Amino acid sequence: MTALSSSKKKPPAAPTIVSLGGNVIIRRGEAGTIEEQFENARMAGSFIARMAENNGGIIITHGNGPIVGNILIRNEAMKEKIPAMPLYICDADSEGGIGFVMQQTIYNELLRTKKIKDVVTIVTQVVVDTKDKAFSNPSKPVGPYYTREEAETLSREKGWSVADDSSRGWRRFVPSPRPVRIVEAGVIKRISETGVIVIAAGGGGVPVVERPDGTLSGVDAVIDKDLSTSVLALEVGAERFINLTQIDMAYLDFGKPGQRGIREMSVKEAKKHLGAGEFLRGSMAPKIEAAVEFLEGGGREVVITTPELIEEAMEGRAGTRIYA
Amino acid sequence: MTALSSSKKKPPAAPTIVSLGGNVIIRRGEAGTIEEQFENARMAGSFIARMAENNGGIIITHGNGPIVGNILIRNEAMKEKIPAMPLYICDADSEGGIGFVMQQTIYNELLRTKKIKDVVTIVTQVVVDTKDKAFSNPSKPVGPYYTREEAETLSREKGWSVADDSSRGWRRFVPSPRPVRIVEAGVIKRISETGVIVIAAGGGGVPVVERPDGTLSGVDAVIDKDLSTSVLALEVGAERFINLTQIDMAYLDFGKPGQRGIREMSVKEAKKHLGAGEFLRGSMAPKIEAAVEFLEGGGREVVITTPELIEEAMEGRAGTRIYA
Repeated sequence: MTALSSSKKKPPAAPTIVSLGGNVIIRRGEAGTIEEQFENARMAGSFIARMAENNGGIIITHGNGPIVGNILIRNEAMKEKIPAMPLYICDADSEGGIGFVMQQTIYNELLRTKKIKDVVTIVTQVVVDTKDKAFSNPSKPVGPYYTREEAETLSREKGWSVADDSSRGWRRFVPSPRPVRIVEAGVIKRISETGVIVIAAGGGGVPVVERPDGTLSGVDAVIDKDLSTSVLALEVGAERFINLTQIDMAYLDFGKPGQRGIREMSVKEAKKHLGAGEFLRGSMAPKIEAAVEFLEGGGREVVITTPELIEEAMEGRAGTRIYA
Repeated sequence: MTALSSSKKKPPAAPTIVSLGGNVIIRRGEAGTIEEQFENARMAGSFIARMAENNGGIIITHGNGPIVGNILIRNEAMKEKIPAMPLYICDADSEGGIGFVMQQTIYNELLRTKKIKDVVTIVTQVVVDTKDKAFSNPSKPVGPYYTREEAETLSREKGWSVADDSSRGWRRFVPSPRPVRIVEAGVIKRISETGVIVIAAGGGGVPVVERPDGTLSGVDAVIDKDLSTSVLALEVGAERFINLTQIDMAYLDFGKPGQRGIREMSVKEAKKHLGAGEFLRGSMAPKIEAAVEFLEGGGREVVITTPELIEEAMEGRAGTRIYA
């Protein structure tokens, strides 16, 4: 594919950020084979390829939940024979694997549109604050289930936080600190401005902390990918944030008899509903929270819907639109 | 870190390609812990950071042998519980994980030199030819050892080529086709020209084939990373190819009583020695072969040595230099 040369005539159009949920790449109930991953990627990839026909850069972020979970379980299961990699390396691995699937899928879909564009994946580090209070309250269960005895041994040997997670067993819990900045944001912005589609901050990015001398070091944590996407979107000057998930839209009274879909709301209304606890924690709530951060930081528009409905949502006939 | 703005005044200096052997990242005899990987990466990273103080872009490639081997073994061991990813996804995973280690290490080393530079990893696809005769002669053993019965079952169920590999058991054999082109070479070149250090084509790149309609598809194969590096080096217009490995230099009569190190040779001499079988297959031979391809394709200079000796080698006091 031939490269687009960077235009020096006018300032580049503001990019659009498209974020794919981890459950959009491996759907609930799926085993997670590579065939399923490519099939799921194709739905989002086909939309992105059509969107790329218009002007303006496209930057893609994605979740990695089911995939990094599998990588972590494989690492733990084999740790007697092969040194287990820390969670942050598993994250980096998943940025490579999922990035490859998305980058190839979008490239292939672009060929169908006859649009010449490059697509690349940038391995992305996201700085979190060592003083983030999440570090004293590890809240995200990761990896395999253990017996209480195994969990307590791991806690002693590795200093892990472990706890009983539902009725299925004990698990390791890691902190979920807020993303502060995207280390590679400057390069991502510049590549995007030359017309290249960039996949970045996969899985919320690899969490790193900054030492007093400025050097970086990976930490075992889970960064919410919606919040990372919002930080990246602001750092690259995006105007629009399209968040593709498995729920068709945001709802009021979700799951209750009178649930009502929200077709459109202002950032002010979004904050009000968020404060009233209308949105499910760990599901719709972080997406609305990320939308609020993005819009209050200077973004123009957020659209939340499924890959299946995104075309209709772009025309205002599906999904939820939140505006500044 | 602040971005360097791309210079519009003069054509960018030709980049230098630095390639790190997989056995430079996990050394023979090491278990392969993440601490060992970071320690090994620091040696090469420190040299690269000092080199970055001079002008000219730097593009880094690396092997992934021991690491992708571990990923593959974990995948196979857990396949009854979690779908095993194909080799090409394990390759992409390793590009993420190793890329992260190198990118962070170089970033940290750059801080010590006070030089402001960005460092990114680009997940890289490398096209191989479906008609490559390597596909009818799978020659590279990968993954775990099996009993003969297990191997024959896998061969029936998955169509794998399996064979007895030394005395330790049966293994899967995959083809080792020649790299034809680097899909992301154009973007890698443009990013490098803006002063960013780029890590690319890790593990020789993720092997893909091009279908008649131009779409790409991953294949289970092993691409020699020295040959991929040579193809990438020519595609980005590099003048110099520094190949860091675990052997201090190329030797004549290697391993024999009268072995003699080669401090310097022309590409013509290199071809003659290569033809005479002076260099070990799967070790020094592919490095010399890649050097010949690079120099005959327009490159100026190749240096082969260890990360420990590279500074001396750059001054002509260690290693092997091959010139056009």
